[in-house]
Amino acid sequence: MATYRLDLAYDGTDFHGWARQPQVRTVQGELETALARRFGPVDTTVAGRTDAGVHARGQVVSFETDLVEPDRLVASLNKMLAPEIVVSSCRLVEDGFSARFSAVSRTYRYRLLAQPLPDPFFARTTWHVGDQLDLGAMQHAAGRFVGEHDFASFCRKGRSTVRTVLRAEWIRDGSFVDFWVGATSFCHQMVRSLVAVGVDVGRGKVHPEDVPAIIEAKDRSAARGAAPPHGLTLWEVGYPADAS
Amino acid sequence: MATYRLDLAYDGTDFHGWARQPQVRTVQGELETALARRFGPVDTTVAGRTDAGVHARGQVVSFETDLVEPDRLVASLNKMLAPEIVVSSCRLVEDGFSARFSAVSRTYRYRLLAQPLPDPFFARTTWHVGDQLDLGAMQHAAGRFVGEHDFASFCRKGRSTVRTVLRAEWIRDGSFVDFWVGATSFCHQMVRSLVAVGVDVGRGKVHPEDVPAIIEAKDRSAARGAAPPHGLTLWEVGYPADAS
Repeated sequence: MATYRLDLAYDGTDFHGWARQPQVRTVQGELETALARRFGPVDTTVAGRTDAGVHARGQVVSFETDLVEPDRLVASLNKMLAPEIVVSSCRLVEDGFSARFSAVSRTYRYRLLAQPLPDPFFARTTWHVGDQLDLGAMQHAAGRFVGEHDFASFCRKGRSTVRTVLRAEWIRDGSFVDFWVGATSFCHQMVRSLVAVGVDVGRGKVHPEDVPAIIEAKDRSAARGAAPPHGLTLWEVGYPADAS
Repeated sequence: MATYRLDLAYDGTDFHGWARQPQVRTVQGELETALARRFGPVDTTVAGRTDAGVHARGQVVSFETDLVEPDRLVASLNKMLAPEIVVSSCRLVEDGFSARFSAVSRTYRYRLLAQPLPDPFFARTTWHVGDQLDLGAMQHAAGRFVGEHDFASFCRKGRSTVRTVLRAEWIRDGSFVDFWVGATSFCHQMVRSLVAVGVDVGRGKVHPEDVPAIIEAKDRSAARGAAPPHGLTLWEVGYPADAS
């Protein structure tokens, strides 16, 4: 058996999320259909399952197959998938590599368009927030997320909600204000829930000193819901140097 | 009667162009429907009619009405139109102002994504050209367009095809290569036809020294067709200082 690693990007706007589902258009569905034309049926494993409307710049997928087809595979997949899904690399990796289980970290970017007027060219990839934002307060609140915590207040119900956040910061980039967050892994809706609290801190509706209590509550209703999906992009997945 | 000037931007991807048409969704149709809710029926005049798939950053529209409604008009229009169409300003101007006939120049940007791989986040607003491009040759060819010429080779049939090009240059911006072109006015499909020739020069399929002969031919078949609409954005419209 051969194990492949695929790196890909997609605009999630017109997909019903990553996971294959009957009847609806999903990224996994499109990708597996394209792969089947080269390899026959394959089951893909993904590093980060994205929800409907969420994008990816550095998504990683792995699959096993009997066939080895290294040549021109990227070009041939992109002929079927681009421009909404673009494969940037496709290569044979060590047996046992799993895009999901070999990953040691995931980094997401959540992008706000922070200006009074919306912008038609960023409607699909940003959340427009017209209010004044107190970036210092947001930064202060973000620092509270770093480290190992039970993020139950920020997660849709799941088995374990304990996660280790490696990085959480807001960075202004012109008219954009970006939340960069990295963790070993995330539970469902966690990034968008952290963003919702961050923006409410920026708007002065939540005091940054109240964030530890929101975490401690370990109760979904203690947080502030979830920011809309379209501002979110899975940016990068990290693997040990010898595994990828 | 009061005369209004509206400045607006739109992502043209999901519209059948500017001009109102029965049955299909157009920018003018959406705008006039929104305006009718504040002013009753109005006829708008536009600075640059854009084709299906073409975008605008600095489009200008004028209309006359009996009513004066200056307050919060921008916010109220954007509530109906955003995020695909965003009105950035709406104000009373001198009687006799026409977005079309008072304009003294139009500037368009045509954006290429010049890299081997496509990019899902720029699929709607750029033309992906994966080939190596000779920017020096493109620049040289672009210089030939400047000045007053009969652009019949670059226009869909129209009455007069004589135009004065004020500026025509290619500028690299990271992975993008942009064609900036300004003229007193343009005939139909002219910018996209100039781009098609420019890209074929960049690919080495047309020699820059052949461009004057293509202009001189005054024959549509002498040029190289038209670049796809989605890379094109109407960037700015110029008016005399006392007219706008």
